[in-house]
Amino acid sequence: MIAVLAGGVGAARLLQGLVQVVDEEELAVVVNTGDDADIHGLHISPDLDTITYSLAGASNPETGWGLAGETWAAMDALERYGGPTWFRLGDRDLATHLHRTGRLAAGATLSEVSAEIASSWDLRLALLPMSDDAVRTRLRLVSGEEVEFQEYFVKLRHAVAVSAVRFAGADRARPAPGVLEALSAADAVLVAPSNPVVSIGPILAVPGIAELLESRRASVVAISPIVAGAALKGPADRLLVELGGESSAAGVARVLTAIAGTLVVDEADTALAGEVERAGMRCVVAPTVMRTPEVAAELSRVALAAAGAGADGGRVVS
Amino acid sequence: MIAVLAGGVGAARLLQGLVQVVDEEELAVVVNTGDDADIHGLHISPDLDTITYSLAGASNPETGWGLAGETWAAMDALERYGGPTWFRLGDRDLATHLHRTGRLAAGATLSEVSAEIASSWDLRLALLPMSDDAVRTRLRLVSGEEVEFQEYFVKLRHAVAVSAVRFAGADRARPAPGVLEALSAADAVLVAPSNPVVSIGPILAVPGIAELLESRRASVVAISPIVAGAALKGPADRLLVELGGESSAAGVARVLTAIAGTLVVDEADTALAGEVERAGMRCVVAPTVMRTPEVAAELSRVALAAAGAGADGGRVVS
Repeated sequence: MIAVLAGGVGAARLLQGLVQVVDEEELAVVVNTGDDADIHGLHISPDLDTITYSLAGASNPETGWGLAGETWAAMDALERYGGPTWFRLGDRDLATHLHRTGRLAAGATLSEVSAEIASSWDLRLALLPMSDDAVRTRLRLVSGEEVEFQEYFVKLRHAVAVSAVRFAGADRARPAPGVLEALSAADAVLVAPSNPVVSIGPILAVPGIAELLESRRASVVAISPIVAGAALKGPADRLLVELGGESSAAGVARVLTAIAGTLVVDEADTALAGEVERAGMRCVVAPTVMRTPEVAAELSRVALAAAGAGADGGRVVS
Repeated sequence: MIAVLAGGVGAARLLQGLVQVVDEEELAVVVNTGDDADIHGLHISPDLDTITYSLAGASNPETGWGLAGETWAAMDALERYGGPTWFRLGDRDLATHLHRTGRLAAGATLSEVSAEIASSWDLRLALLPMSDDAVRTRLRLVSGEEVEFQEYFVKLRHAVAVSAVRFAGADRARPAPGVLEALSAADAVLVAPSNPVVSIGPILAVPGIAELLESRRASVVAISPIVAGAALKGPADRLLVELGGESSAAGVARVLTAIAGTLVVDEADTALAGEVERAGMRCVVAPTVMRTPEVAAELSRVALAAAGAGADGGRVVS
């Protein structure tokens, strides 16, 4: 069994490699739901859907999120009403949100619905929301205003400075059924190259999860989402700096060292190995920019090997 | 000022005639919301939308409900999840429900949202839900099972016998802002040829509305939705019989006599004038089958004249 902590696009890329290396049924993915949102009354779970659509081979290859060949009749019609249309909901994607919202309204849990949706797309891995309880990532802007994650990420295109991040509801949230079991039973836990602040952070904020990982950090391997000082996608680099850290693989190490024993950094960051080590993590160097599924598969092999759970790979530099 | 009690398709047809006879800004339409439904977490208001789309010239001319030129990508995609798809939601229609649901979730009232939607479609009349409080028409089937209105009407295609109807929540509901004012101030109140049991019935079940109409019943004119013993559309004929009444214009008169002084019946039902009169209503005969907007306009003139509020028309037979 392999468990993965996952955000959205970066995690989906890694998983597309991992399923080439590990039997899908041996995989449990614990997914961030801190950026879930209620939009037009629908329960949207962007990271769960990105992973589902990606693994189903149905995602839009250009954006990495949403469905390929999508149509936009509902959004176009919504323009008439003058309400918010910054969160783009494709017609086919809407079906997922309608189903999820209807099932939740009927009393199903988010983990039940997520499993149903994954199964409907013929996925065989365990797709676990981090919690069935509502946790909402909220960002305080330097203006003093606090916004929900999707407003920051989509509406404001994360082009605003952030002074603080909190995960509303996390202190009362319980890990979803199966999460602690999977993280406990797994031969290795991988932390996907997702934003450590707003994708991995919410997962670790659910009581019980970080504690469990700390207790087994030697077989927890994280992959740095920062390459040569910059995020491949999204605001991870700026958020790390804005919240007092550093936009580098070493900065990532300082955020994740409590729960992961090893950090896989890109070859471009070989020189940072010493800094990663000083942050308390073993450093493994490998190509981490997943331009193709082959690179993702090789990166998966490296990470599993670093966790002592698979074929060897990568270059351990510390 | 003219006020109208309205259900769905039959009311929409009448209103398409009435706006040719009365300045739209002089019209207040009190709309049944007893068949509102929560489907996939969305708040659906079928009668409000049917009237809006019809008056906007955007409705599907074949069905009388929904939007012309609709697409169904979301519904098709929903099939994957195996949930209920018997309530067909077109992609463009979905935008209306998304907007309504989002606004309600943000704290707006149903009457505020209905006015916004009507205005977005350039309607100038006052479109008033009967109540901002939830009233839900529920039907007890002869099997003993109780179902919501849309399940009866759409899923079961109203092809099941009903033993009782109730309007859940009606006893605690308050008329929406403007409803009692419009019904009080109007020169005439028309009761559209809508199902007297499940379209007009819920409106009359909201405390205060029937009482007000009783006090002014001389200028309240109803149009029979039953022609030659049959409903032009929907289950009005069967429901009247199943609930102990009669499927005829006279049966309609016995249901509405408390709140309306006059019933307009179709020429096919001239012979029933005496029975209508014995039920306590004046009877006016006119063509009531609104095959064209011209017939609807003429019927509107007849009804207004019968209420003493417009040009003369129709043949008063009692």
